Order: sequence, then C-alpha cells, then structure tokens
Amino acid sequence: MSRTITTENATQDPSAPDPSGVDGQGEGLKQRFHRVRQDSMSITALLHAEDCVIQSMPDASPIRWHLAHTTWFFETFLLKPLAGYQPVNEAFEYLFNSYYNSVGAQFPRHRRGLLSRPTMKSVFEYRQQVDAAVIDWLSRQELTAEQREILEVGLHHEQQHQELMLTDVKHLLSCNPIFPAMFDHPVADQASPASVEWVGFEGGVRRIGHDGNGFAYDNESPRHKVYVHPFRIQSRPVSNREYLAFIQDGGYRRPEHWLSAGWAAVQEGDWQHPLYWCRREAEWHEFTLGGLRRLDPAAPACHLSYFEADAYARWSGHRLPTEAEWEIASQAAAPEQILKGANRFVDSGRPVHPEYDPTDTAALRELFGCLWQWTSSQYSPYPGYSAPEGALGEYNGKFMCNQFVLRGSSCATSANHARRTYRNFFPPEARWQFTGVRLASDGAE
Amino acid sequence: MSRTITTENATQDPSAPDPSGVDGQGEGLKQRFHRVRQDSMSITALLHAEDCVIQSMPDASPIRWHLAHTTWFFETFLLKPLAGYQPVNEAFEYLFNSYYNSVGAQFPRHRRGLLSRPTMKSVFEYRQQVDAAVIDWLSRQELTAEQREILEVGLHHEQQHQELMLTDVKHLLSCNPIFPAMFDHPVADQASPASVEWVGFEGGVRRIGHDGNGFAYDNESPRHKVYVHPFRIQSRPVSNREYLAFIQDGGYRRPEHWLSAGWAAVQEGDWQHPLYWCRREAEWHEFTLGGLRRLDPAAPACHLSYFEADAYARWSGHRLPTEAEWEIASQAAAPEQILKGANRFVDSGRPVHPEYDPTDTAALRELFGCLWQWTSSQYSPYPGYSAPEGALGEYNGKFMCNQFVLRGSSCATSANHARRTYRNFFPPEARWQFTGVRLASDGAE
Amino acid sequence: MSRTITTENATQDPSAPDPSGVDGQGEGLKQRFHRVRQDSMSITALLHAEDCVIQSMPDASPIRWHLAHTTWFFETFLLKPLAGYQPVNEAFEYLFNSYYNSVGAQFPRHRRGLLSRPTMKSVFEYRQQVDAAVIDWLSRQELTAEQREILEVGLHHEQQHQELMLTDVKHLLSCNPIFPAMFDHPVADQASPASVEWVGFEGGVRRIGHDGNGFAYDNESPRHKVYVHPFRIQSRPVSNREYLAFIQDGGYRRPEHWLSAGWAAVQEGDWQHPLYWCRREAEWHEFTLGGLRRLDPAAPACHLSYFEADAYARWSGHRLPTEAEWEIASQAAAPEQILKGANRFVDSGRPVHPEYDPTDTAALRELFGCLWQWTSSQYSPYPGYSAPEGALGEYNGKFMCNQFVLRGSSCATSANHARRTYRNFFPPEARWQFTGVRLASDGAE
Amino acid sequence: MSRTITTENATQDPSAPDPSGVDGQGEGLKQRFHRVRQDSMSITALLHAEDCVIQSMPDASPIRWHLAHTTWFFETFLLKPLAGYQPVNEAFEYLFNSYYNSVGAQFPRHRRGLLSRPTMKSVFEYRQQVDAAVIDWLSRQELTAEQREILEVGLHHEQQHQELMLTDVKHLLSCNPIFPAMFDHPVADQASPASVEWVGFEGGVRRIGHDGNGFAYDNESPRHKVYVHPFRIQSRPVSNREYLAFIQDGGYRRPEHWLSAGWAAVQEGDWQHPLYWCRREAEWHEFTLGGLRRLDPAAPACHLSYFEADAYARWSGHRLPTEAEWEIASQAAAPEQILKGANRFVDSGRPVHPEYDPTDTAALRELFGCLWQWTSSQYSPYPGYSAPEGALGEYNGKFMCNQFVLRGSSCATSANHARRTYRNFFPPEARWQFTGVRLASDGAE
Repeated sequence: MSRTITTENATQDPSAPDPSGVDGQGEGLKQRFHRVRQDSMSITALLHAEDCVIQSMPDASPIRWHLAHTTWFFETFLLKPLAGYQPVNEAFEYLFNSYYNSVGAQFPRHRRGLLSRPTMKSVFEYRQQVDAAVIDWLSRQELTAEQREILEVGLHHEQQHQELMLTDVKHLLSCNPIFPAMFDHPVADQASPASVEWVGFEGGVRRIGHDGNGFAYDNESPRHKVYVHPFRIQSRPVSNREYLAFIQDGGYRRPEHWLSAGWAAVQEGDWQHPLYWCRREAEWHEFTLGGLRRLDPAAPACHLSYFEADAYARWSGHRLPTEAEWEIASQAAAPEQILKGANRFVDSGRPVHPEYDPTDTAALRELFGCLWQWTSSQYSPYPGYSAPEGALGEYNGKFMCNQFVLRGSSCATSANHARRTYRNFFPPEARWQFTGVRLASDGAE
Repeated sequence: MSRTITTENATQDPSAPDPSGVDGQGEGLKQRFHRVRQDSMSITALLHAEDCVIQSMPDASPIRWHLAHTTWFFETFLLKPLAGYQPVNEAFEYLFNSYYNSVGAQFPRHRRGLLSRPTMKSVFEYRQQVDAAVIDWLSRQELTAEQREILEVGLHHEQQHQELMLTDVKHLLSCNPIFPAMFDHPVADQASPASVEWVGFEGGVRRIGHDGNGFAYDNESPRHKVYVHPFRIQSRPVSNREYLAFIQDGGYRRPEHWLSAGWAAVQEGDWQHPLYWCRREAEWHEFTLGGLRRLDPAAPACHLSYFEADAYARWSGHRLPTEAEWEIASQAAAPEQILKGANRFVDSGRPVHPEYDPTDTAALRELFGCLWQWTSSQYSPYPGYSAPEGALGEYNGKFMCNQFVLRGSSCATSANHARRTYRNFFPPEARWQFTGVRLASDGAE
Repeated sequence: MSRTITTENATQDPSAPDPSGVDGQGEGLKQRFHRVRQDSMSITALLHAEDCVIQSMPDASPIRWHLAHTTWFFETFLLKPLAGYQPVNEAFEYLFNSYYNSVGAQFPRHRRGLLSRPTMKSVFEYRQQVDAAVIDWLSRQELTAEQREILEVGLHHEQQHQELMLTDVKHLLSCNPIFPAMFDHPVADQASPASVEWVGFEGGVRRIGHDGNGFAYDNESPRHKVYVHPFRIQSRPVSNREYLAFIQDGGYRRPEHWLSAGWAAVQEGDWQHPLYWCRREAEWHEFTLGGLRRLDPAAPACHLSYFEADAYARWSGHRLPTEAEWEIASQAAAPEQILKGANRFVDSGRPVHPEYDPTDTAALRELFGCLWQWTSSQYSPYPGYSAPEGALGEYNGKFMCNQFVLRGSSCATSANHARRTYRNFFPPEARWQFTGVRLASDGAE
Repeated sequence: MSRTITTENATQDPSAPDPSGVDGQGEGLKQRFHRVRQDSMSITALLHAEDCVIQSMPDASPIRWHLAHTTWFFETFLLKPLAGYQPVNEAFEYLFNSYYNSVGAQFPRHRRGLLSRPTMKSVFEYRQQVDAAVIDWLSRQELTAEQREILEVGLHHEQQHQELMLTDVKHLLSCNPIFPAMFDHPVADQASPASVEWVGFEGGVRRIGHDGNGFAYDNESPRHKVYVHPFRIQSRPVSNREYLAFIQDGGYRRPEHWLSAGWAAVQEGDWQHPLYWCRREAEWHEFTLGGLRRLDPAAPACHLSYFEADAYARWSGHRLPTEAEWEIASQAAAPEQILKGANRFVDSGRPVHPEYDPTDTAALRELFGCLWQWTSSQYSPYPGYSAPEGALGEYNGKFMCNQFVLRGSSCATSANHARRTYRNFFPPEARWQFTGVRLASDGAE
C-alpha cells in the first residue's frame, strides 16, 4: 500500500525557520559551549586511557586526538586571533591540525596512532585551559558576527567529532577478539518493526538547501530549485531480517547486484555480511558498543557501505533515493519528529545502537536519530556554491569527489546537530559509520 | 565580452534526430561493419608486434587484447546465439572477456600483459574468421531488432576501443626513455588560438538525454527535464599557454586550489605538470604520438586529470560546467559542427593530437574532435534509467561510481562516434585520455 | 699499532664455566624469578599507560604486550602442565602467543597494536596471579630438570623482552615530533674515546659455541671446531665522529660501498644518516631515551643496520668480523670484563644509551654492555644443531634465514643475560636495536 | 645402505685443472665467441616476437632484454675502451645496463617490460654490429690479460643469461591459461630412478674454492681451508614421488616443518605444491617447456624454493648439505661426470627438463646437468675474498645477503658453464629456477 503526500503542505512555508536548526534557542552561548564540550568528556568517561590512543585504521582517529583536535579548533580559529593570546603549546598547532592547509602543515593522518604523548591527562588540561579562555572571553565582550559564526561552527564541529568518537572506538573495540563493551548493559531485543509502506511524492520544480534561518554548513547552501520526477520512498529503513534475505539469496556472491567497484570491494575484502556481523555456533551475531550479541532480526540493518546499500536496493528491485528526494520527503515530516527521533546519545546511558521507534506513527519514520541513510547522490556542490574564504572554506568543499551523500542522522548524533538539509558524506566503501538503507522507487505510486 | 544565446533556438525541435547520431546513413550495414573493423587494423598497421603485447599500467590494455576483445564481442553476443555456430577457440571466451560477469569468469584485467599468446598472427586470424562469419550471416538473412541493436553496440564498442588503442599505446610509448613515435611526421606548431569568449545561457527547465533517434548508449537515456541556473561557458578549451600560467603561479604547489583527493594525487604522484610534459634543457616538451616535441603554447592543454581540470578552474576563478550545462550549450551548435570537428583519425594519417580549428567561426568551438571536456558531474544514472537485461546491461550502469563525466569527443574519436548526448566517464585521477578543460561560470553574463 | 694476542691463553681452560653464564649463583631461584619479573615492572614504571599500548611498526610490540607475553610464557610452559592449574583467562592463550605454532594459533603480530584491552591494570593483575602461582609452586616442590630448564629459559626470555621493551618504546617515542623523554635526565657528553687499536689473532682450528656449563640457548650449541684464518679486530666500536666522516664522504650517496639490497634500502627509505639522527639548525642531533640532544661525536655510533655497518666497513677499507672471529677474540677477554661492561640498565636509572668505558684498560673494550656488534655471519645452525622437541624448539631454529648474527650485548641488556657465546640476530635492515660496528681485517697483523 | 668415500682420493691432486673448467680447450676464442653468441639466438628462434618483450614478474626479464644486455656487456666492457669505437646507440648504455652503478644509471629493472622498442629486429642488428666489431678486433690483435679476462667473463655471463632466458620464458608461458609450449615435443616419462643411497665423508680440514686453473668467477676464490664434520649425502636428488609423500603428509599445512619466513611465504602465496604443478581432473600435472603434462613421479622434483627444500629435508628427518659439504662430495666425482651430466640444452632440441640419467653408475649422480641443488649455506664471501676493482667487482660481491647458495648445474646450463666450485645463489623464496633437493645428514655413516 502506498500513501501519497504532496509536498505542497511540506513546503508551504519555506521561509519559516527549520525547527531542526533551532538549536540552543533560549540557552545561553556559554551554557551551550559548556554543555557541548562536556559531552565529549562524558563519552570519554566510559573508556580507559588505553582505548583512547590507538588508531585502528587510517580512516579513524584515536579518541584522544578527537579531544585535542576539537579543542585546537577553538584555540586556532577563535582564541589565536585575539590580541595577547598565548597558545597552550606551540607543538599542538601541528599535531592537532586535521586538514587545514591554510593553517599550516599537519601531522600525517595515518600516523595519529603513533602519538602516545601528550597523554590523556595533558589533553584534559589542554581542554580546560582553552575552555577557561573561551568562557572568560565570552564573559567579557560581545562577539562579532564572524566570531559568533566561528563559535557555532566549532560547536557543530565538536558534535560531528562526538559521533566519530563513537564510531571510531566501536571499530577499535571490534578488532579485539575479546569484544570489549563500552557500555555496561547489552543491547536489548526489539519488537518487530511496523510493516514497511511506500510514501509517494509528485514531481516538479522544488527547492532544497538551507534557507539561512539557524545554523547550517556552507555545503547546504544556496537553497535552490531542482526538478524532481515523481517518486516513492519507504516509511522506514530496511531491517536485519530483510537484509538477511539478501544474504541468503546469495547477495554477496552474485556480481549482477553490484556496482563494478562494489564487487571489487566484496572480493578484495572478502565481504560476506555487514561489517560487525559474525557467525558463532551457526548463529548470526553482531558486535555492538554493548558487546557481542545475537543479531536481532527486528532491528534496522546498520553499518552498510554504499556498495551494500546499492546492491541491496538493486536486488530488491528498487533503488536508493537521491538526496533531493530525501530532503523533499523530509519536508513533509513534522518538526517534532526530528527532535523526537534524535537521541541525545550521551545522556541516555544506553548502548548507542540504531532501533526503530515503535511509538512513532508518522508516515515517514526513523528519518532522524536512527541511522544515516545513503542516497544515490554523489557529493557535489550545489548550484552557485562557493567555499568561504579562509581556513573554514576547507571544511566541506574540498571533499566533493568520490563520496556519496547520506541524509538524516543516527543514534550517535546529537539531537541539536540534526537538520533536514544536513549533507553527510562518506566514500562508498565506508562501513564503520551508523549507516543503512531507506528504499525509493520511480513514480509517485 | 560575452555573447548570450538562448537555448530556445537550440531546442526548438527537440524531437528532430540528432545529426550527430545519423551515423552511417546510406551506408549498408555490411559496408559499415567492414569499415569499422578495418579501422582497427589500420591503427595496428602503424605499430610493431612488440608494441601490441605490453600492458603499461593496469588501466590500459595491450593493443592485441583490444583487437581480440572487440572480436570476442561480436562472436559472443552475435554469433554464439546462432544455431550451429562453432567458436573459433574455446579458451578465448575466458581470455578476452573484459568484465561481463553474465558471460562468465574473466582473465584478470591487470594480468592482460602476461599473455604472449595467442600471437598477433593468431589474433588476426581470429578477426578474419569472425568477420567472415558475420558478413556471411548478414548476407543470408534479415536481422531482428535485437540483433540489429547488438550489431550497433558492437560497432560503437569497437570505435570506443579504437580510441583506447591510441591512448593506451601512447601511454606505453611514453614509458620508453627513447620516446618512439607511432606516426612518421611530427606534430606541427599551430597559429595562436582565437581569444576566448564567454557564451551565456539562460536558466530554467530544459531537457537533456538522448531522444531515441539514431544510436545511443543506454546511459544517455531517458531524455528528461532538468532545472539549470543561468550560466556562461567558454568558446574554446584552455590552451597550453593559459595552463602554463597556472603552473608558473605555483599551481602544483598550492593545496588551496585542489580537491583534497586531488592534492593527495599531486603529492603521491609528484605531479608537477600534465602527464606527457617534461622539461628538457630548460624548455617544456611534450610527448606526442609523433614523438617528443617542444611544447606548443598555442595548442589546447591536454591529458589533464579531473583533479587538474578542477584545480585550474578554481585557480582561474571559474568552474567546470555540469554535464547538463555542456549538453544544453551544445544544443546551440549546428549539426555541421559535430561532423566538421570530429576527425577521422585513422584515415587522416596525421599524428593524433588535439588542435584548435582556425577555420571555425562558431560561437562554441572544439566541442567535438579536439579533446574530451571534463564536467563537474559525477557519473550517475539519469532519472528513470535502468540497465538493460542481460550481459549488455553491464556495459555502462555498473560503473556509476567515483567517475566524472566528460563530454564532446577528441582527436582520437571517430567522427560517427560523436554525439551531443554522449557521456564518457573516467576516474578523477585518469590522465592518459585526450582530456582538457572548457571553463564555465555562474550567471548568463 | 697492533697488538697480537694468541688465543692459547684465552682458550686454555675451555671447560671452565663461562663467567658470563654464572647468572644467579648463590641467588635462590625464587629470588631470581622475583627480581627478573620486577625488572619488567621497573621499566614500565617509567612510562604512561598511553606509551604502553601503541605498536609503532610491525617489528615492534606494545609494552603491555611484552608484559603479558612474558607472563604467558611462564603460564603456558610451566603452570599449564601442572595438575589442576586453572588458566587466568582462556583468551590470553591466543592473544599473547607470539609465534608458537605448537601451542596454537596466534593473534597476528602486526595487529598487536589494535588491542586496547586487557588494560594495563588487567595485565598487572595477570602478572601478579601468575607470579603468585609460580612462587607458590616453587615453594612447594622440587623442580624436575626439565622444569628447571623451562624456568631458566623463561627468565632469559623475559630479559630478552626487557631489552625489546626499551628498543620498542624508543622507536615509538621517536615517532612523536615532540620527542618525549622516558628518563628525566638527558644523556651527558662523553670524553673522547681512546684511540682505536688493532688486536690480532692467529689462524687455525678453534672451538666456538657453548660448553654446557651454565645456561645457554639451543642455538649456541653444539660447541664445535671451526677453521679460522688469521685476523685482526678493533679494540673498540666505531664512534660517531668516525661514522660522520663516512657520511661527509658521501657514504649514503655512493652505491659502491653498499650491498645491492642495502643500496635499495637506502633509496627506498631515503636513508641519509643513522635512524635516530636528525639535523636541527645545521647541527646533528640524536634522539635518546633521555630526549633529543646534540649528537656527541665522542660516543659510539649506534642504531646502525647491518647494511650501514657493512657499508661503513667497506668504505673504511676493512670488514666486519665473522661471528667465529668475534667469539674467539672474546675468549681473550677476562671474565670480569663481561660483568663490568654490562650495565644493569634498570637499576642504574641512567638513560639507556651506549657509551665507552674510559676506565677500561683491556685490549678489547666494549665487548659487552655498550652495543651489539654486527658480524658478517648470516644466522645459520651450528654443525650438529637440532632444535629441541616441542614448543621450545620454535625459540630459535626457525629464524635461521635472512638474519645476521650480532655479538656482545648492549646498554639495554641485563648483566646476567650477556654471554660470550650469545647469538643475537636481526634482519640486515633492522635499525632500532642498540647496534653498532666493530671492525675486523684479514691477517693477524 | 651407505658407502663411504674418503675425500683423500678426490683431493689428491687439487692443483690439477678442474676439468669442468677446461671450457673451450682447443677451440679458438673467435669460434667460442661465435658459438656462445649463436646459442642465445638458437633459444630465441624457438619463440615469437610476442614472447620476447613481456616481463612476467620483477625478478624476470624479457628475452629481448637478455639479448640486448649480454651484447651491452661486450660493448661496454670490451669495445668502448677501444680507441675510436663508436657506440651503436647512446641510449642503450642506460637501457641495457642491469646493475652496474659504476657504468651509470640504469633503467629500472621492474620496468624492463615497458619497453616495446627497440624491436627484436633492432636488437638483432645490435647483436650483429657488436659481434662484427668483436670478431674484427679479435682478428686484428693480441688480447691483453685483462681483455682476455673480460671476454671470458662476458662469455660466461651470456651463458648465465641463456639459462635465465629459459627460466624467464618458462615463467611467462606458465602465466598463460592456455599453457603454450616452447618446444614441439612434450616431455616424456622416465623409468623409475635408482633407489637412493647415502654416500659418507669423513670430517677434518679440507680445501674448497677455485684453484685458479681455468675460468671461475671471483666469488669462488680464494681457495681456502674449512673444517667439516663427518657427513653423508644422497646419491641422487629427491624425486617427484618422494616429494608427493611430503605433500600427502600435510607438508604444506604443517608449520613445524618450515622456517618462520618459509611458513609466511606458504601462507601469503597460498603455496600448496611446487610452482609449476597443478591439479586437473584429480590428477597432478606439471607445466613444462613442452607444455602441460601429467606429473611424472619418476622424475626429479624441481622448481622448489629454498623454503620448500628445507621443509622437505626437515620433514624427512635429514637436512640440506652445506656448500662445503657439497663441494667436497663433488671432488670425489670423476671429471667425466661433469661433462656427461651437463646437457647442451640448446643443441639437444629436447624440452629443457630435469631428468635422472639411468646410464650413470657413479656413487653420486645428477650432480650436474639435472637441477641446481640448494645448500643450507647463506651466500657469504669466502675468507680473504675481495671484490675486483671497477665495474666487474659488482658482478657478485654485492649480492652476498639474503641469498642461499645452490650447487651443481641444471638441464638449462651449458655444459662448459658447469664447475664443481660454481656458486649459484637465489633468495630463499625463488621458485622459477630449475632447483631441487639433494639430502645430507650428520655423520659419515
């Protein structure tokens, strides 16, 4: 069965602020700064020092590096331009620069795991010193618009890194044959998800991109017109049970379902199932941040690469949505859904793990707060986009190549970091993020 | 100065057959088959057996492999389904299958250069046997629509491989420090190109993609609407002189011009100039199929990767066109231009080398027959695209990942292989094709 | 000037116990066990937890792994065969097995740095539990000869790993651009070394190898006859000043000094100086466990690969000694020298760093306790050697391939771990051990 | 059963010329030069141009490169020093230099397969021009002793390359799934080999190395004393049937038989049998220069790496001989055996393939002309060895690292290239030479 929602209602007031961007309304900047910074420490509190120095693969970074780099961001872009500011440690400029060529050279990314010093203790002190300086400065004067913008970017930047901290440490712990748990309590079984339905949308000229109300990254602008053809999109992401049918049908052994590069990845990496699945005593298990557990068929299928998402979609006779389709569909969702769906993972104390929300009765569910949804759109600039001047222009634009766009947000995203217009992106072979599939199809019904 | 052409005229008759597709009108199928097959032999006649077995890099194939594989294509898809047909050699099914999983396993691509047998002589015999069988069959009966389609694809497939034969052997010869020439006569100097002008186009909903008249690959369909914003495009491709200014301004040393992955390619490959350039005695030289020669500043800049094209565009303050923009702009060009611009490289006897056409007075020049022009569009399916059933469905669709679209055609393309809607594609690091830059910019003027 | 010592005196009492082997005489086994185990903890006490989990290269292991593996050795070979013994943790058998195929599968060596758990605290507990069990068992019963042998091997095994802990952590710290120091006080300058002299030895049939008195590894046996030609050997290892002359003479740029494989290593690794040297502000510096310091020309040249040692020797007009020559020469040294030369590095509290002993007046100096000396002998079995039965047979024999023998001992070796007959071995490209050069030459004078 | 031969008889006249070195006695130098040069052409005549340009792995070279390089050797070292000599082509100095740094830079070895030019025809002309110049020069004047020496080295050098041409082209053809044959007639089955016997030798001081009569490479000198312990050696090399027993006993699956590096090679290369074996329809086959054939259990086991030879020996309860043992044993063989055993492979017209000689009744058989026999000796300089001055000093000495010595000669060696003192050497993982196993054991009986 298929319900059609015209986007008329959804877009009737495109100039209204996107509620997903009303982040921190009513909360003072100092409070927000303090809270976001504290969230990184809360994640860290669940780990041992030993967990925080290892780099498990070139794409991942040690937790301690994330802690230092997010601090470096505030120090470099906010504090260093202030008259009289003394850097905490000259060496940090090089050690904790990620990829900002305009700031200077960078300690090579793939070698971040070779740094045992500064120790966690020193990094904590670095954070405290920078935090104190920022709070002090915020107390003493009005921010210019540019400073306010940098501070906002810095906070969202740190929230992005909080999600990476969780995905990177999950990857690290998964490499250990004793499968350590980050969280005390294991992931619980779910009730079966609601049956999947199709939601249809008419075609025509639509607008996507950020409207300028509230915070957004540069890559979400300018808001612009696109022509979309009629399409349908599924009410919820694909489940483990559904994905198992693909595996059982020889999905990982039949090249006809795969992109050529995807099939090469399957063979080189000997892929036979999603990243964190394994078979033990003839049963499927899954590694979670709560440890190894039996696979729950009723949970959403997660940690899929674009290649797997695309192959599953082709096998199922459908396809992935474009990012424009996803965004147009999300325009039909009530603002509350975004806030509802997105967990505050750090506060919750629960294992960070994607799940369906059985209480949600909306037509489109799990848009936010469950798992990132691959789109078929390769990551490209919007018409009229140009990267900002200066170092912050390196934030997004230079990665527009060989990446696919993901939309929504995941169980590891902060609630106030999610937006309808948010463009996340990863290479098609990346599997260690909380990523899954929501299917689409041609024609509104 | 900028001239604006509305696309009204260009698209006033979108249902008319694209003249670029009227390939072989009036020429019998047998004659065309014979001519295209002969073209491959004409290229080969300019080489020694030793040139035809080596694989200079995983992306390239030996000439002899191209000769056999294009023959395999006709044998596999046309002849083998015929009742009573006896394959020339059972082993060839495996040896000369490129990437058709539905046909069977393939001898690994990167090992094609390990095959010294079958010898050139045997491959020539293979060609003759298959040609005789096809001609015989064409003489005896009417083709079904499907057979006609396969034959067409086979001919275009062979023409694509003729271009690859030229680019692959150019790469091979370039690896040799004695720089052997394929052609007897060297590449001549050109007059300076006309000054570059901007041609503007208004925005709105337009149609792109193949209209179904004449031959096209599946990836050019369906013809569909797109929304484009006003844009300008340059009258001709960038010249060596213009590209040299980029180099002299430190283009290869300044990360701010490059995509992140492009900058990595620059550093890993120690790129300091286009692929076939080198400095000898303080002067720029260029390797051509006519041997090494002094670089001609007046010629078009060629053998650029997407990364270089993109970096040049950013440095120049402009950008690359999207593929939709390129196609819309090309709709304004007269059909004659396509035929005029596209060299029949094999007949001409001239070194295959891109050059400006000083006799062309059109607003947009060198759209065809000079060099492929990178677009900023990553290679993705058109809305409503689905790959055909069967093996030919593997021709295009499975490569839609991590590739960028090129438009136009080059000095190595057969005239009747060029089309306005043609979507060529290569990975962003590829440099060995005849590829260059035509700049675009936002706003119609 | 050259002094000749016939080996008659040196070998006049070959059946007397080698004083270098009288390890622990008068010391109870329990005390020795306790002391050796404690030494590993003393090294660790100088480090942070963050220093102890990282694997800086495939050849090195994390400190924590060394701590656990040496414990695993006692647990696996001593405790597990005892009736009723309950292993501390089943998973450790796999995690901390280095290369004993007869025990079972091993967690891959190059992935040791991916294990953040068990934490340091857990590893300390593992050590305590195993130590308590061993001590308890030693208190309760007499050891069989085989148990005594295993215990001895285990203690020497741990001492070997103590040296590796120091070299591995030195490598790790050297990868950090802030050059952290393990020891508080920096390495001090030395007085100039005594001028180098040649000590000659006559040729003939000699005996080398361990005589069976005291502990030795299997690879030092059987003691056997060799024919040696007359040779000379230098009184002390080559100094930094001497090695600098090689560099200044273009040593790293002239292939004629190098083995073919050595020259390949120079080019691939861009070697221009010993591993831990660097130039800062036009001066040579050296990374030490006491931090970065200006290079002391008066100190011994250290951290040389076999390739560098061999190239230096060829450049100097001499050669490296064979291991038989080295051992025969060492037979002339008084037993006291061994004990004198070998630092107890852990107790001393000084930076572990090679230095000349200005108080030593023997003909041959720094045989022990300074740096390992490369010999020209590839590591091969002695005539009549056969590896012991069982897992301990994997200790040495299976590495007799593509390794060169080093003799003596270093500043990182325990005094009671040094022996005249000790055969250390590393691949010719290895540079991170405390390794240097003592020159030899043909003819006794 | 074991027969003991004291080496007294064998070495009773150590000063007599080694008959294996009486190469070309009575044959004029010009005739010999012409004959050896012609042999290379005879090998080539069995191949197509396509077989002669491909490099199937970095260790192998294209046939055409061998043809040019051996010519380069004479031109560089003999002709270029002559007054007034004009090089055939300046570019060849760089292109065809193998590894002589003293001559100049070298086109990289692993890229030799990228050169399609100069063509075979040009290389043949190069050979003719150099041959004519050498013959002309030999006709006009007396050679100095040094020139005579260089000419000798050049002839032996070419004979070495003739063996490499055969092993390299065998490797190339083996990569082709259609398994082309170089020779018309297939390899025939053999009668079962004689049962294997042990031949014992007493210990003591012996002499090995070349005595200076006749030609030898520098690495065979100086003749010197060694101390050997009593040993036994087998009468013939191990057969396929014997080696199959090792495989059937799990030889390739049980790490306890292997050196550590050997076991790594087994796992990385997925070794399950000798290089050119394969299973077809449940039967063992072997690729030969006469094509693919069923494995002959009665033939010698060939194309074994050192790792396999060593593992087989350990599994069998024996060991490989040292090179001193092999040479001492060979001293007991009559000179005729050398000449008898060594095939002139090129003249014979038979497939180059190792076989037992059923007519040989000597105690030690197949020392020569069957397959090279791995020794347990790592390749090191003899006592007192020093490489010659100049470029020829690069011939041998710089490879004394990570290689094992092979003794005897193979079915691909020229008869007059075999010598008792000949030291062939390859890395322990090399499998593409004609290499096998002759077992040894401790104790004379």
